[in-house]
Amino acid sequence: METVKKIQEGDVRTASRLIRRIEDGVLEARSTIKKLFPLTGNAHIVGITGPPGAGKSTLVDGIVTQLRQKQKKVGVLAVDPTSPFTGGAILGDRVRMQKHAEDEGVFVRSLATRCALGGLAKAVGDAIHIMDVMGKEVILVETVGTGQQEVDIINHSHTVLVVLIPGMGDEIQAIKAGIMEIADIFVINKADRDGGSKLYRELVSLLDMAPASAFASGWRPPIVKVENSFVPESFNNSVAELTQKIEEHHQHLLASELMVSRERRKAAVELSEAIRNTVYEPIMDKLITEGTIDAMVEELMAKTSDPYSLAERIAQRFLKS
Amino acid sequence: METVKKIQEGDVRTASRLIRRIEDGVLEARSTIKKLFPLTGNAHIVGITGPPGAGKSTLVDGIVTQLRQKQKKVGVLAVDPTSPFTGGAILGDRVRMQKHAEDEGVFVRSLATRCALGGLAKAVGDAIHIMDVMGKEVILVETVGTGQQEVDIINHSHTVLVVLIPGMGDEIQAIKAGIMEIADIFVINKADRDGGSKLYRELVSLLDMAPASAFASGWRPPIVKVENSFVPESFNNSVAELTQKIEEHHQHLLASELMVSRERRKAAVELSEAIRNTVYEPIMDKLITEGTIDAMVEELMAKTSDPYSLAERIAQRFLKS
Repeated sequence: METVKKIQEGDVRTASRLIRRIEDGVLEARSTIKKLFPLTGNAHIVGITGPPGAGKSTLVDGIVTQLRQKQKKVGVLAVDPTSPFTGGAILGDRVRMQKHAEDEGVFVRSLATRCALGGLAKAVGDAIHIMDVMGKEVILVETVGTGQQEVDIINHSHTVLVVLIPGMGDEIQAIKAGIMEIADIFVINKADRDGGSKLYRELVSLLDMAPASAFASGWRPPIVKVENSFVPESFNNSVAELTQKIEEHHQHLLASELMVSRERRKAAVELSEAIRNTVYEPIMDKLITEGTIDAMVEELMAKTSDPYSLAERIAQRFLKS
Repeated sequence: METVKKIQEGDVRTASRLIRRIEDGVLEARSTIKKLFPLTGNAHIVGITGPPGAGKSTLVDGIVTQLRQKQKKVGVLAVDPTSPFTGGAILGDRVRMQKHAEDEGVFVRSLATRCALGGLAKAVGDAIHIMDVMGKEVILVETVGTGQQEVDIINHSHTVLVVLIPGMGDEIQAIKAGIMEIADIFVINKADRDGGSKLYRELVSLLDMAPASAFASGWRPPIVKVENSFVPESFNNSVAELTQKIEEHHQHLLASELMVSRERRKAAVELSEAIRNTVYEPIMDKLITEGTIDAMVEELMAKTSDPYSLAERIAQRFLKS
């Protein structure tokens, strides 16, 4: 219970160590999370996603500044799935968010996936719980997003920001089917670039064309334009507006049924991740460690068996009935 | 065995139906794949990946034209993970590759993920097997790529093309860590755009800086520049060069130990997908169908339990010992 107490007191070292242990898949860390779980549920969790190069980190940095001016305690979780196009969390905590490094009201962590499938998103859920129990009032979860894994990450949040930049060209045609469903707030970053107005108009007409049911809860996703981040005043004003919208969305969630449905979505994601980590991954770990996978790969190479027959053999060995 | 024979004869309707059944997770379709598996291993499988908007489809179309001029039988598999940024396989087979629609030597299929985790990549492996047994000599697997799922898809191929475009700016810094490991051939598409030469120089110096061990097999990834696809002659010449490089890489694989290690990588991916589909997903399906997941989500909402404790309950129910 010592650990739980320290985390409740906001102890950074204890929290960092626990997050690291969760990332590393240390089994005993689970017992701490079990104890933390009933204490969670106070933070407003904000997901920020968008394509690579959309300037999400700078935006997150700006939002943190705004929230700190309002004396809010803030947690930041930067999630960078190791991928051929991002190369993982290469920047790390050290160079990120240097501005807030001395600020005790801000707790920043980066997660990179180390184990394969699902390990990342699992650590995200637990890291959010830890920050929540630390007393962080707003937790910003930033992820470079295109795949299913990023959607899983975003499903841990109450409010979702989708960050776009001008010059994506015809891509808007391709993306519009998907982002409508997840965005609570659109951000056009680097809006003073060529194509900024065009992107804005496209988003507006996209929202205009959406069925009424899309805004049944009474929230139409606003579009916030953020101009060149090298002009501090203009940038700060836009980010202040954005932060305002984030807070409005939080109020909207609380005032409507929406918070409950977001919490339910979050619980479902966490549950399925926990099942995967408890039921499936230990089997895979065992098969790898004992050399069964290697032996089976050789069977496939020799074509003396096929993947499905081998998988059925595994199922018979590990599953009841 | 009727189905197997028809697929060996290249029957498009039988192959299409089988791919659809695999996508839909029809269990009996597996028995056909089991029979097909020993007949596979003849095709050269080429993966094409890169960020959204890199012009991969046009490139694939050009490569098909080149291969058809050489009388090669070609399969094309366009994989589009449903994602908030791509919106899934929205284009579909109908509008894609119209040019080759009447050509019996080309078989084109798009896959979009319908079930959650891993279902997509599984269908990819089987669709490749089906095209292989149909007698396709080259199978092009195209995916919009950033996440782990796309890496899984790419691991089904022997030769990997990474398509980049100028104007990604500082992104090259972020991507370089990851793409080095997977690219056998780099393509700079739309190379006549601003920044084309800069991107080329960056890639060259990236390759120059790589440790000697990276090219231990004797293959240094070539960089092929493809200019504006609206200038047909220039485009065709570049794509002819690219197709040549693809064939050279194939020869290199066959002449070195590399083909065996690529086949082994492929087998390992297939095996782990088959295990996931056989061991893990049926459990999840059952839990969802019978309402257990919903009931457990309510427990989490009420905070009467936590995700790990619930997952352990599932493990006890389904796993031996």
